[in-house]
Amino acid sequence: VIPGRDDVGLRSETVRRANLSAIVRELHLRGPLSRSDLVAHTGLTRSAIRALIGELAAGGLISEEAPERLGTPGRPSPVVRPNAEAAVALGLELTVDSIAAALVGFGGAVLESRRIDRPRGHKAVDDVVADLVRLVDGLSEPVDRAIGIGVAVAGVVRRSDGFLSTAPNLGWRDVPLGDRLVAAFGRSVPISVANEADLGALAEHRRGAAVDADDVLFISGEVGVGGGLIVDGRPLTGFAGYGGEVGHMPVNADGRLCACGSTGCWETEVGEDALLRRAGRPVDGGREAVDAVLAAAAAGDPEATAAVGEVGRWLGIGLAGLVNVLDPRLVVMGGHFARLFPLVREPLERELDRRALSAPRSVVRVVPSALGVDAPMCGAAELALEPLLADPASWLAAQAAPVHARLASA
Amino acid sequence: VIPGRDDVGLRSETVRRANLSAIVRELHLRGPLSRSDLVAHTGLTRSAIRALIGELAAGGLISEEAPERLGTPGRPSPVVRPNAEAAVALGLELTVDSIAAALVGFGGAVLESRRIDRPRGHKAVDDVVADLVRLVDGLSEPVDRAIGIGVAVAGVVRRSDGFLSTAPNLGWRDVPLGDRLVAAFGRSVPISVANEADLGALAEHRRGAAVDADDVLFISGEVGVGGGLIVDGRPLTGFAGYGGEVGHMPVNADGRLCACGSTGCWETEVGEDALLRRAGRPVDGGREAVDAVLAAAAAGDPEATAAVGEVGRWLGIGLAGLVNVLDPRLVVMGGHFARLFPLVREPLERELDRRALSAPRSVVRVVPSALGVDAPMCGAAELALEPLLADPASWLAAQAAPVHARLASA
Repeated sequence: VIPGRDDVGLRSETVRRANLSAIVRELHLRGPLSRSDLVAHTGLTRSAIRALIGELAAGGLISEEAPERLGTPGRPSPVVRPNAEAAVALGLELTVDSIAAALVGFGGAVLESRRIDRPRGHKAVDDVVADLVRLVDGLSEPVDRAIGIGVAVAGVVRRSDGFLSTAPNLGWRDVPLGDRLVAAFGRSVPISVANEADLGALAEHRRGAAVDADDVLFISGEVGVGGGLIVDGRPLTGFAGYGGEVGHMPVNADGRLCACGSTGCWETEVGEDALLRRAGRPVDGGREAVDAVLAAAAAGDPEATAAVGEVGRWLGIGLAGLVNVLDPRLVVMGGHFARLFPLVREPLERELDRRALSAPRSVVRVVPSALGVDAPMCGAAELALEPLLADPASWLAAQAAPVHARLASA
Repeated sequence: VIPGRDDVGLRSETVRRANLSAIVRELHLRGPLSRSDLVAHTGLTRSAIRALIGELAAGGLISEEAPERLGTPGRPSPVVRPNAEAAVALGLELTVDSIAAALVGFGGAVLESRRIDRPRGHKAVDDVVADLVRLVDGLSEPVDRAIGIGVAVAGVVRRSDGFLSTAPNLGWRDVPLGDRLVAAFGRSVPISVANEADLGALAEHRRGAAVDADDVLFISGEVGVGGGLIVDGRPLTGFAGYGGEVGHMPVNADGRLCACGSTGCWETEVGEDALLRRAGRPVDGGREAVDAVLAAAAAGDPEATAAVGEVGRWLGIGLAGLVNVLDPRLVVMGGHFARLFPLVREPLERELDRRALSAPRSVVRVVPSALGVDAPMCGAAELALEPLLADPASWLAAQAAPVHARLASA
């Protein structure tokens, strides 16, 4: 935040834009706030808040409501409320066995969401993209109502253009996914593609289990295992945006062949297939088969119990390494790990106790995801809303421009 | 940098302090610069630079020299030079088999340095501290000439007070090392303690192999194996400062017992003892024994060659996991890994090719340390100089204060 120093004459366009962004971000992350809260959270002066709120209200992004009388002394402060319908983003998710879509409004409200399962064998890129388009067409709002489309995918993605280097469990390699999606959805709405676990971490940090932590490791378990890192409140994506691939840490150098081509990666010991294999069931059974093993383990079936316990032990082994390297405050277990967590907690924590160094071990907690399987989709919508949060002034200017000018600039 | 806006009347003490810091940091990291360079690097106005340089010169921290005539048009710009003797820091290092000390001046010049080997068996904390004091007493400057003491130690350290949680290869656990050092060196000079690999990373990033990279993984190999991470130009130390313990990633879950109490940690496969054991030599032989294995391997001895190759293979296995998780631009091999690097490069890179995902693999380079075994000691001095860089205004004020006032506030 750059203080709005009307008093000393410094009031450049840069300052206005930064201050609008600070206000819009606070409202998006915290929900309705009084003007006094905004003063407290942004450090801006009361008069700067008043002027900027006026701009945002005129543009329709927020509404001001008369305050309720709270019995506190002094003049009550009006409540500023984000208008979810004013700016809506489309969050998409593309996993090995399902696709999903959600409309999320400014302020974070999920206005509508859908998920459909897809057979794991059927993975041609064109077919998956066509299914995504059909799913989105079924939503109540047309695509071009969205200010942006965010896409979460279970693969290694270049952020700049959505080029997918590899998605081992989809069997994809070197797919220009960003371009394909632009071809399918058109150029009128910007599209951003990112790794599903990175976006799951973002969503849990903004609205889920990790809102109070700034050093977070999010682990997403599906067929593959992904990771998303938040360090000091900011996403750690690495030099080229490829970071977080915790599923491909070698933990058992003489272990099984992994879909990535290496052997003994963590996901070969803790992914869905490892659980099914250990329980003596056919792999490739998808979510239902996993649920059947979890139900059997909960009911005391010895083979299922042993399988779950062994996955828990390997979860602890891999997490111990990550805790030693990253010293997180919180580990959030996402995807099917969230459902698995109560059953594996004991062997997982035992292995952490044994293998993590006592200092980082003493500060870390392991918790299940709060957003469940929808975390990456919610994160995708957050990604698509980010340009609005970073520069609401441009959004305001676009609202004010006549429609033909907006189309011409698209 | 906050622009020094004389024109609009904003010239608070906060701005002056931030701008002094920006100038001092540039000079420390880049060495002598012309006023024009300082304008370019800091974004400050020429008049602001002139005034602040005047303050720093009056305090003795920098000197201005007449420029050489370079044949370029226009008035030549005076050269601003950091005065190394004006502010000196003491960097100490405490490893399993040696202790070291260096006096490093503002600007980064190493004015004096000493290292002595210590027998590995002799590890009582009091004895080591006493040896450090003797080493420092042998330097040409008294301790209280230093503006700060930085200490690099091969263990897991809490930054706030230098409490050492564990140093497995020193056999130390729960040692209030910061307090012990304050007792030994007195309170007149501030003492900061940090992990040796974190400080090695800092030094290589500021003055070594990683000056041009902002996403760096520094791996330090001695008896133990440590890591230091730079992410987006900033140190990643984790929630409580315990991060970077890459030596304790489980890479061989059924492997050997580690000094930390776990089994199959990376350091049990790539540390000094692993090399000696694989070469059929007694472990605990220290640097000379390691050098003998390296010399034998270079001369073609089959057992030594096989041992070195196997360490290289395991280095590649562990690095593959770290590359997949962190997506660094550069991996810097420090400690004895720097000497090992030419001999292990081929198996290391081969294993990286096989096990790292192709996207992060394609952007990472692995290089030897430029500062060699002294990297952590140099980093310790950088740590001790940091308060000067962050707030030179306070340093200037202390210089101006009479001596008795300085003593009273110490």
